[in-house]
Amino acid sequence: MGTLNINPEIDDQFFNSINPLDPEEFRRQGHKIVNFLADYYQNIEQYPVCSQVNPGYLQKLVPNSAPNHPEPLEKILEDVKRDMIPGITHWQSPNFFAYFPSSGSTAGFLGEMLSVGFNVVGFNWISSPAATELESIVMDWFGKMLNLPHCYLFSGGGGGVLQGTTCEAMLCTIVTVRDQMLRKIGRENFCKLVVYGSDQTHFSLKKAAHIAGIDPENFRVIPTTKANEYTMCPKSLHLAVLNDIKEGNIPLFLCATLGTTSTTSVDPLRPLCEIAKTFGIWVHVDAAYAGSACICPEFQHFLDGVENANSFSLNAHKWFFSTLDCCCLWVKDPSALTKALSTNPECLRNKATELNQVIDYKDWQIALSRRFRALKLWLVLRSYGVTNLRNLIRSHVNMAKHFEGLIAMDTRFEIFVPRKFAMVCFRISPLVLCRVSTKFDHEEEVNKFNAKLVESINSSGKIYLTHGVVGGTYIIRFAIGASLTHYWHVDIAWKVIQDHANALLYQGSV
Amino acid sequence: MGTLNINPEIDDQFFNSINPLDPEEFRRQGHKIVNFLADYYQNIEQYPVCSQVNPGYLQKLVPNSAPNHPEPLEKILEDVKRDMIPGITHWQSPNFFAYFPSSGSTAGFLGEMLSVGFNVVGFNWISSPAATELESIVMDWFGKMLNLPHCYLFSGGGGGVLQGTTCEAMLCTIVTVRDQMLRKIGRENFCKLVVYGSDQTHFSLKKAAHIAGIDPENFRVIPTTKANEYTMCPKSLHLAVLNDIKEGNIPLFLCATLGTTSTTSVDPLRPLCEIAKTFGIWVHVDAAYAGSACICPEFQHFLDGVENANSFSLNAHKWFFSTLDCCCLWVKDPSALTKALSTNPECLRNKATELNQVIDYKDWQIALSRRFRALKLWLVLRSYGVTNLRNLIRSHVNMAKHFEGLIAMDTRFEIFVPRKFAMVCFRISPLVLCRVSTKFDHEEEVNKFNAKLVESINSSGKIYLTHGVVGGTYIIRFAIGASLTHYWHVDIAWKVIQDHANALLYQGSV
Repeated sequence: MGTLNINPEIDDQFFNSINPLDPEEFRRQGHKIVNFLADYYQNIEQYPVCSQVNPGYLQKLVPNSAPNHPEPLEKILEDVKRDMIPGITHWQSPNFFAYFPSSGSTAGFLGEMLSVGFNVVGFNWISSPAATELESIVMDWFGKMLNLPHCYLFSGGGGGVLQGTTCEAMLCTIVTVRDQMLRKIGRENFCKLVVYGSDQTHFSLKKAAHIAGIDPENFRVIPTTKANEYTMCPKSLHLAVLNDIKEGNIPLFLCATLGTTSTTSVDPLRPLCEIAKTFGIWVHVDAAYAGSACICPEFQHFLDGVENANSFSLNAHKWFFSTLDCCCLWVKDPSALTKALSTNPECLRNKATELNQVIDYKDWQIALSRRFRALKLWLVLRSYGVTNLRNLIRSHVNMAKHFEGLIAMDTRFEIFVPRKFAMVCFRISPLVLCRVSTKFDHEEEVNKFNAKLVESINSSGKIYLTHGVVGGTYIIRFAIGASLTHYWHVDIAWKVIQDHANALLYQGSV
Repeated sequence: MGTLNINPEIDDQFFNSINPLDPEEFRRQGHKIVNFLADYYQNIEQYPVCSQVNPGYLQKLVPNSAPNHPEPLEKILEDVKRDMIPGITHWQSPNFFAYFPSSGSTAGFLGEMLSVGFNVVGFNWISSPAATELESIVMDWFGKMLNLPHCYLFSGGGGGVLQGTTCEAMLCTIVTVRDQMLRKIGRENFCKLVVYGSDQTHFSLKKAAHIAGIDPENFRVIPTTKANEYTMCPKSLHLAVLNDIKEGNIPLFLCATLGTTSTTSVDPLRPLCEIAKTFGIWVHVDAAYAGSACICPEFQHFLDGVENANSFSLNAHKWFFSTLDCCCLWVKDPSALTKALSTNPECLRNKATELNQVIDYKDWQIALSRRFRALKLWLVLRSYGVTNLRNLIRSHVNMAKHFEGLIAMDTRFEIFVPRKFAMVCFRISPLVLCRVSTKFDHEEEVNKFNAKLVESINSSGKIYLTHGVVGGTYIIRFAIGASLTHYWHVDIAWKVIQDHANALLYQGSV
């Protein structure tokens, strides 16, 4: 450090020339970015929805090391346009029907801007009381909108927390019940703990269980069937649990899903929870995608039985206009969670915590540091209001219904499972393909053809959709929910799908 | 769903009235927020740095449930001003000297805006190629700036990833080596795995090890001493490891710290890594705070020996102008990491992944979903340039040196440990207190007095600083690094500290 010489005057001169938070420079550049993004949304349909670049494209366009000297924002934004945008898959495009939506909104964006602007680190109450208190308040607001049982709300002895993703929410709850159980049975029995999901449960469960140290051999996958619409069969779960007990294992954790990834199936919560209760199994309900729909009374029956589960989560960044990341987790017994995840280091000691008057959200999650995520949820709720939010969800559901109707009119296609929310699963019907060639008597060839169709559609760049494989069948998923999607986009998408199907069926090398 | 009736016209009318991503409404409201935040930075010194509200203050100010109808942004921003700002602890204030800085910047903010605006979910390459490729590129850029050994860069067979926080980075690396070891020794020996840190290691290590299923009994805390400046003594580590082996335990993971939380001590990497190597222990270097300083050549000697560690992380959101959250993790062997954390579900299958041509960052972290965090680091690097970033870091270090000089001139205070970076640890000297009252012969009373001083200063709202306790001694931490801090803020802060010390020493009820 011998090279450092204190010279406040020189340092101040330098600092004034570069002040990284100079309010007027912030204002000037901030406006530029707002305009840049507004123009981006205006022009978003010009870009191929799914990026068409080749692996390694960017390395060829950028220097090998960071620049020594500052570059103006104008130049950087040119580079964003020229180098980044072609490499972006446009999740905000109205023609994005892939995966599940990543629903952006002006309100969500503004909330995130405020959060980034304040840039507080809300690990405990005192580090920024508003961050903690607003989070508890909006989690109760949201819980009420969903008609979650009172026991999940702070006002009912439970409570909610904002996490990044479902995987983190699952990990936190698994660790909670793992610790409870290990205290009872002793650590030497760790490798007997069993986690249950179905073959439709999101793979995050397996990853979370694995990270928590559960033996991968003890990850039970309950098979589902088409007859049961790919939901977890309570009887199969019961048998699996009994079998584990017979083998000396210890059933620990069950994940039930409200809206599975492949087909948006809904596991029957009530009977599953009843079985779990009998054996002291913690039930987490993963409603990552479809949970948001439950703000509409007509979907709330799917929550029937959730009062007997232990935790419930949904991703507001999927279908609730809240931009990534915003996973809402509610638990019935916060003290169990904090018992597993709390830390009390000297450097964070403070009166409010010691008097037990406050929530310290670091004890509700994996990490110490946390952003002021509640602001974006608060802005979404206030800017749109409950009535409009319900109607927005309904408009997506209606568009999916409309799309389903279009498919039903074209006998070359089949709906694979009944639509529940705003996602439609379909494929080119094997009956039609069989008429084209006898090779399509084999399911594998039918799958290949449908995969080829998806690939052909996506490389057009006009729309983007993705697939699933359930019970050996390749299905095409059409998920509506991008905030800019209108009916006419759905109609055009359907035309694109038909055109590519035509090309493959009648002109291509089937 | 019987209540749903498809009527595209009505739905479209409704949608047009509320379109949550209407570009012109986005533009109008976006500009408002930019102005709101620019004004906030302009006026930030008007607010008490540490929030002075009482627990539960917000509940009294807001309704019990979300509004049914939309509220205009103007009203919401009024509420932010009236209800939120008093509850915010102003981490961006130039008078914030608490914890470690949460260094915001215009460039970091703009990068985050772009990321939120695009709102892509970059779990794998195809989901948004630019998000993955830019991340790899800036991680190599940053690694080169730090002069990290080539083996940590993609160009040298290693590689970097952006995570949320250090705790997540630690958890990922612990799980990686845990799995490696369990494959060798069998899961029945899980409870023999041992993790090592010192009494100065961040408590995130203990939490991460706990989440990964390491027996809390097997968390070894190597004691440090003032004589060793609170660094981990290689000899003590060696003895602890030998002892564990003697007892039949299996040494697994060591966390060495570059810049501890309490005193910014730097563990001696070279000898620690040598011991670890002998016993096959994974070494993670936690440089959360001080790592950023290593972009300056005069600090790079602290990295000496890091080539023998396995992973290295720093928080760009702490002292690298990148806003929360942005933890940079480099590993020498990415394949070990992905072996532990990869998942390959059908719904994400794609050609690029199958041809092994690309990075899928979901396999480098806990969660599936991930934001486009690389944009903010890229904007910071390009907007300021390496030379200015070094000088910004140096200006903070110089200010800390200046503050140290001020303390040295006032014999009532003592510097507790030599300053290394931009944080100064000090306290009212026990020698001075002893002259005031004989009760100060007891260390505990000296501690209490210093704690009282901190409390008195913080309740003034003029500046905010926090404390640490090392080896039984309560110390006051003065951490410089808020982006708006100038020399004159340091001078004023010193005056505030002196005034409160005077009041307590000479007018108060000592």
